[in-house]
Amino acid sequence: MGDLEIRPATTEDVPEIVAMLADDPLGAQRESPDDLTPYLAALDRLTSDPHQHLVVAVRENRVVGTLQLTVIPGLSRRGSTRSIIEGVRIHADERGSGLGTILIQWAVEESRRQGCQLVQLTSDNARADAHRFYERLGFAPSHVGFKLQL
Amino acid sequence: MGDLEIRPATTEDVPEIVAMLADDPLGAQRESPDDLTPYLAALDRLTSDPHQHLVVAVRENRVVGTLQLTVIPGLSRRGSTRSIIEGVRIHADERGSGLGTILIQWAVEESRRQGCQLVQLTSDNARADAHRFYERLGFAPSHVGFKLQL
Repeated sequence: MGDLEIRPATTEDVPEIVAMLADDPLGAQRESPDDLTPYLAALDRLTSDPHQHLVVAVRENRVVGTLQLTVIPGLSRRGSTRSIIEGVRIHADERGSGLGTILIQWAVEESRRQGCQLVQLTSDNARADAHRFYERLGFAPSHVGFKLQL
Repeated sequence: MGDLEIRPATTEDVPEIVAMLADDPLGAQRESPDDLTPYLAALDRLTSDPHQHLVVAVRENRVVGTLQLTVIPGLSRRGSTRSIIEGVRIHADERGSGLGTILIQWAVEESRRQGCQLVQLTSDNARADAHRFYERLGFAPSHVGFKLQL
């Protein structure tokens, strides 16, 4: 396999990112890869916020992974800054290749570089494989994640 | 009880916010109310980020509650924007008064006003009372919350 590059996502990457978001048991029901308009508007919102880092992993000119890192200052834990990882997706062709580990390690290192003291994420209760994956990388399943749809 | 106001936190509120963060079984071990320096620096970071909303609930000139709302754009779920609630604290004198419900309802309404389609939060596995509270307010405990200390 060719070299891997992790870099900020651009407009040109959106179709491949959305295809990965939709190629997922949970994502299939809530994405619309045939209409990219809302995704392009969302990319504009992400790009204009310096605390947002939507990245893609690229190998041989193909987008093979993505995640979003958000840097969040706060008062608790002696004024700690934390990061939140969202929207981790690995292309079907690359699952089991270790790319997920590389992407999460990138996010942890970038969080450290940006002065974060804590990295957090939530994973759907149904994603048992993902839970084992995050525990292997040192994440503690210490919290319950609640969501409210508006 | 007097009227309640929910408004952005200022430098003058920091001692009362930190006292609430520390007056908590988990917070007692990780806060330093005798040294406000890191908290004041964190407030500067929060105030300079337009997607951060650290608020206090004030009754009769006393800070009786606080929470932090973060607005996070994203590509997943058809380009949904979500909000994250962190650092919810209610003064010991006000627990059981319904203030927690008022604060969370404020955060939900503010999220809606800012165009969010989803509100999320995590709560430590040890906070069973908080979990019942969030479920009563309509939040679904659908996710596992993972944390990695750096």
